[in-house]
Amino acid sequence: MTTSPDIALGFDVGGTKVLAVAIDRAGSVLYEERVPTPREYEPVPGEATADAIDAMMAKALVEVQRDVADVVVGVGLPGIMSREGRVVFAANLPAANGAQIGDILRARHEGLRVVCENDADCGAVGEHELGAAQGRDNFIMVTLGTGIGGAIYLDGELRRGANGFAGEFGHVVVNVNGPRCPCGQSGCWERYASGAGLARMTHEAAAAGLLPELVKHRGGAANVRGEDVTAAALAGSNEAVAVVHDVAWWLARGLGNLATILDFDYVVIGGGLVEVASILIPRAQELMPSMVLGGAARPPFAIVPARNGERAGALGAGLVAFERLS
Amino acid sequence: MTTSPDIALGFDVGGTKVLAVAIDRAGSVLYEERVPTPREYEPVPGEATADAIDAMMAKALVEVQRDVADVVVGVGLPGIMSREGRVVFAANLPAANGAQIGDILRARHEGLRVVCENDADCGAVGEHELGAAQGRDNFIMVTLGTGIGGAIYLDGELRRGANGFAGEFGHVVVNVNGPRCPCGQSGCWERYASGAGLARMTHEAAAAGLLPELVKHRGGAANVRGEDVTAAALAGSNEAVAVVHDVAWWLARGLGNLATILDFDYVVIGGGLVEVASILIPRAQELMPSMVLGGAARPPFAIVPARNGERAGALGAGLVAFERLS
Repeated sequence: MTTSPDIALGFDVGGTKVLAVAIDRAGSVLYEERVPTPREYEPVPGEATADAIDAMMAKALVEVQRDVADVVVGVGLPGIMSREGRVVFAANLPAANGAQIGDILRARHEGLRVVCENDADCGAVGEHELGAAQGRDNFIMVTLGTGIGGAIYLDGELRRGANGFAGEFGHVVVNVNGPRCPCGQSGCWERYASGAGLARMTHEAAAAGLLPELVKHRGGAANVRGEDVTAAALAGSNEAVAVVHDVAWWLARGLGNLATILDFDYVVIGGGLVEVASILIPRAQELMPSMVLGGAARPPFAIVPARNGERAGALGAGLVAFERLS
Repeated sequence: MTTSPDIALGFDVGGTKVLAVAIDRAGSVLYEERVPTPREYEPVPGEATADAIDAMMAKALVEVQRDVADVVVGVGLPGIMSREGRVVFAANLPAANGAQIGDILRARHEGLRVVCENDADCGAVGEHELGAAQGRDNFIMVTLGTGIGGAIYLDGELRRGANGFAGEFGHVVVNVNGPRCPCGQSGCWERYASGAGLARMTHEAAAAGLLPELVKHRGGAANVRGEDVTAAALAGSNEAVAVVHDVAWWLARGLGNLATILDFDYVVIGGGLVEVASILIPRAQELMPSMVLGGAARPPFAIVPARNGERAGALGAGLVAFERLS
């Protein structure tokens, strides 16, 4: 067994897909793969997720020519995690609720060194060490994926809270009369400013006749998906930009709440929706003064896309593994 | 001039009243006075507030038999404050917006040592040093006065944020379609779980015929005030308890949001509404599992009244003055 591994595998398990990377100590990505997130509940919580990680790990080890005992592994998971790496609650990954995926993997592979951590915390570590947030002492990371994840740096350190659960921004209720959330509450921020929110707003806009071009192109309102809107918006379609602007309004609404509480001076946006950052972020930035206590009287904060893009979580998981396991 | 003063004067300027205390280094309250908060805007921002503090200071100095140069003075103000003590924005004290009350007071009294700080930050320091939060590393202070103030301790330290504005919990929007707030937003938490929220809910309940006893007692629905409801609730009136329970629902709603973000394990409640803590807090505690991500799967946190009660802010302002000015 190598005591000081030169390669880490990082996994980012999202509500929709699992992204794996192999990185070296400088954070260079040597290999990358993505697969759909398994949704099976059987036979025990976390088994299906562990199976997916296992299969990706096997391929990655072949690619980087290492044995399992030679690398360290970090797994980012979308939910509140105990300090021991158990998934206490994951609204967007119910199949893993209660699971100790690290234990499942260790039981399968003797000598495996693995750490499980909240996905957005991984992303924030990655961006702080090797991304957009280098040198930032007071910033938040917000991952706009299927749901919304988050992480908080205050006074130069990642703040994990009393139980390690801090930063679950997606489940801040912004609209007490809003739609039900899989977490059990209603009107959570991630019902709006997320991939799931975009999907819902897309369906509503299509049904209301506000996306005539896309509906025609896709052959029916029911066929228009969030991805169609982001692609069309990036291609300059006004009707699609309008939907992305709706998402931006909610993004600003939630960021304003968080700024009022945390008073950060920098926001890093990760997750799948970063692909439409060029439309989403300028609009949210424009709306910010009306969405935060003190408005224009307080210094504005920058909102920037994660430099590591959609890979921020997986890369960060690898860095967390290097930090804690070697 | 005494270099190590043995007495501090602490002021807590609220939306409704100003409370002054004189304390010794052990935090014992030697003298106390309260007056209504002046609402005049003239002649310059903060002058009227400074006048009120000035008059109270003169009386307190006579009582404790000290000259102005012998004491240190802390002033807690209800708004976002620059690190230099300027009121950047105070939704509930518009007359002081932009004011540097410390400068006004220093210009009037040669040798005066005074520090201005956010009121809830003062309260949190007081509760952490000499109150309910002693030994707590991850807690929030929530002051339920006319509005709602807040302060955050994470990992053992008061977290003030990038600009010193952190913890303005009252202006977290919980209901995007809710009533307008003096801060310019709509549906802020303090439109509900505060003295102002209680007043509004009281008027609504009285008008809707839900407070028949109080309406009869006060001679009309328009005459029933929040204070009538708290007094009646404490005396056991079911109709009044129901209104306090409505406030408790909103208290739990906001605390759940904050717990989802900050993951504290302790909440200290201060401000005028602590007088009804015996009804408010048990109800909020009961509702918490449905108001926070992970619900019953996460460890519960205690919600306790400030040990220094309604004086927490003024006492804390005095302690902050001792800490920073001597």
